Amino acid sequence: MEAAIEEARTSQAQGGIPIGSVLVHSGEIIGRGRNRRVQRGSVILHGEMDALENTGRRPAAVYRECVLYTTLSPCAMCSGAVVLYGIPKVVIGENRNFTGEEEWLRSRGVEVEIQRDATCVGMLSRFIREQPMLWNEDIGK
Amino acid sequence: MEAAIEEARTSQAQGGIPIGSVLVHSGEIIGRGRNRRVQRGSVILHGEMDALENTGRRPAAVYRECVLYTTLSPCAMCSGAVVLYGIPKVVIGENRNFTGEEEWLRSRGVEVEIQRDATCVGMLSRFIREQPMLWNEDIGK
Repeated sequence: MEAAIEEARTSQAQGGIPIGSVLVHSGEIIGRGRNRRVQRGSVILHGEMDALENTGRRPAAVYRECVLYTTLSPCAMCSGAVVLYGIPKVVIGENRNFTGEEEWLRSRGVEVEIQRDATCVGMLSRFIREQPMLWNEDIGK
Repeated sequence: MEAAIEEARTSQAQGGIPIGSVLVHSGEIIGRGRNRRVQRGSVILHGEMDALENTGRRPAAVYRECVLYTTLSPCAMCSGAVVLYGIPKVVIGENRNFTGEEEWLRSRGVEVEIQRDATCVGMLSRFIREQPMLWNEDIGK
């Protein structure tokens, strides 16, 4: 989770939305990502999607042994990517600022762990307060 | 759907997976996309995701008046993107080669129309026959 927070901080420093994610396989980070809406004008590069993209093409067997760490509860798109690739576990920094598709993930057999991390909550809630329109755009509101 | 098929054909001509998609707003195509796994080594640029990305950043109100056309039934990731952005309608060329999250989309209030288009079926079934490993990779199998 520290690495995911680091990615969120990097995004923040770039003027972007402070959400980060890493994909871990056998205890090793194989992909890092951060929200790129501002940096690249991207509507699909949420932190989790960026981590998957940066991981690159992998056999299905690799995804099935991965854990996805994300600073924020994953939205429908990112949760859908988890389901598509059969990632068995998602560790979530916080779900207070936004609660994504945790129940759907669980119903699809994904283990969901929520950490209620104060750093994750604080960083994003400050951003939402300062840039509510950008935040709403990121969650399709 | 003709424009989505055109995108699928372009992908095929590039040696890629023949799936295409377009996003339509008020009768006008605002984004075109095709599967880019082969062309860009992308694990997130399915046809629908590519169409959304090429559409660029739009206010929520625009998505709420869009129809997404896709040559193939959308997987969990692409369906999740539809749910995230509140796209109210998806028109699907075929679901014989692969049936995605149609039921989940319907349960989330999305109108799903299936066309059973012979061109869409034929183009992808030929590809799956010729490149089964690449196909499996694209659907996380």
